[in-house]
Amino acid sequence: MSAPDSHPGVLRGILQDDQILLAEGRTLPLAQARLLPAVSPTKIVCVGRNYAEHAKELGNAVPTEPLIFMKPPSSLNGHLGAVVYPKISQLVSFEGEVGIIIGRRARRIKQEEADAYIAGYTIVNDMTARDLQKKDGQWTRGKGFDTFCPVGPCWVPREEIDFQSLRVTTRVNGEVKQDAPVTDMIFSVGAILQFVTEFMTLEPGDLIATGTPPGVGPVQPGDVIQVEVPGLGILENSIVAE
Amino acid sequence: MSAPDSHPGVLRGILQDDQILLAEGRTLPLAQARLLPAVSPTKIVCVGRNYAEHAKELGNAVPTEPLIFMKPPSSLNGHLGAVVYPKISQLVSFEGEVGIIIGRRARRIKQEEADAYIAGYTIVNDMTARDLQKKDGQWTRGKGFDTFCPVGPCWVPREEIDFQSLRVTTRVNGEVKQDAPVTDMIFSVGAILQFVTEFMTLEPGDLIATGTPPGVGPVQPGDVIQVEVPGLGILENSIVAE
Repeated sequence: MSAPDSHPGVLRGILQDDQILLAEGRTLPLAQARLLPAVSPTKIVCVGRNYAEHAKELGNAVPTEPLIFMKPPSSLNGHLGAVVYPKISQLVSFEGEVGIIIGRRARRIKQEEADAYIAGYTIVNDMTARDLQKKDGQWTRGKGFDTFCPVGPCWVPREEIDFQSLRVTTRVNGEVKQDAPVTDMIFSVGAILQFVTEFMTLEPGDLIATGTPPGVGPVQPGDVIQVEVPGLGILENSIVAE
Repeated sequence: MSAPDSHPGVLRGILQDDQILLAEGRTLPLAQARLLPAVSPTKIVCVGRNYAEHAKELGNAVPTEPLIFMKPPSSLNGHLGAVVYPKISQLVSFEGEVGIIIGRRARRIKQEEADAYIAGYTIVNDMTARDLQKKDGQWTRGKGFDTFCPVGPCWVPREEIDFQSLRVTTRVNGEVKQDAPVTDMIFSVGAILQFVTEFMTLEPGDLIATGTPPGVGPVQPGDVIQVEVPGLGILENSIVAE
């Protein structure tokens, strides 16, 4: 599926191979569409350090409960959208992740009932200015730049996915940098949703980024990042200088 | 002004003494209205440690650039709305602040042109579970609980306010806890907007909380918090047990 919005010129449809079946009936070749972010959330809620080996590679302890932070909706970006490398950073990194799209309002839910609140899944690249993240302490700026949250290429209904079978593979210029199964996650999707909704009501369309596996590293303008999750597609973005 | 939304039963109007002049023409006594949060932002962007004496009272260094964090829209609360004291916290504190409401899309603006992007001002109480804020490191949970962002009672157009004359006074059960002029702020409104919009595009309706003066402290269920900013009104909220 594509196109999350109801603005003029924005259409919704179902992606099938290289064609988009539009809600209005006709078919649009994928090559003629620019895919917008696959979601339009009121909140982008992220889990830090949810893969033990990633926590360790950045010199952090493995957490005993989910570490929650947010990216602003203004950071959203679509498949093939340019990620702008800010002049004020000297160390920008990718973080390939699986995203959860909330299907109905969720407040104080139990982990065993979490599935009923999930509309579907997508791919998220939690781009991060690592130097500013460390300098500020709070991660809002380092992770909050415009274009720093590619999401897509589409989203897939929950019923069509066996979540436990998913695997996140990130390539930079074709070279594999991250490659791990979601079963390596420290906190399961249910545990994350129980933890988050104990304090924060989630709304339909809200996006949860489930954390990144090990292998993060710097990118430069000109680099092409692909985050692939078989079953969810390939999210590709290029880095451009500011 | 009141009522930020277009949902059924939600009305907009101009507050004049104890009457609300509704957009549709008739007048509603304030006593018959429940004031919703005075804003409906896509982002609530906050500045930490923007008063030197407040930074010091919590044992922090005085920052050399604005420290930015976010509260989720799900934490919004209105004047007289109940703030729920979470069971999982043992140390909840008030933080009275002046809020800025963005009037038009702001991206990479210079501080000297900031006024043109400001629709008006309001009062924010940045409620904080201090123990969870410290435990987590990231402030999203400690500051992100539902009901933890009272905003109101109304908002006042920029043209009607001499910002530099404003003063924040917070009372708990009638006792003054915070009382400082906004001229004590380390970073001016212009400096904040320049810093934030260098990385994050602000949208109309977005809310910027400008930081809290010294005097923060714990509250308990049953306490009544009033944040007063002469010219902007009094924002009152009670603490209730979960």
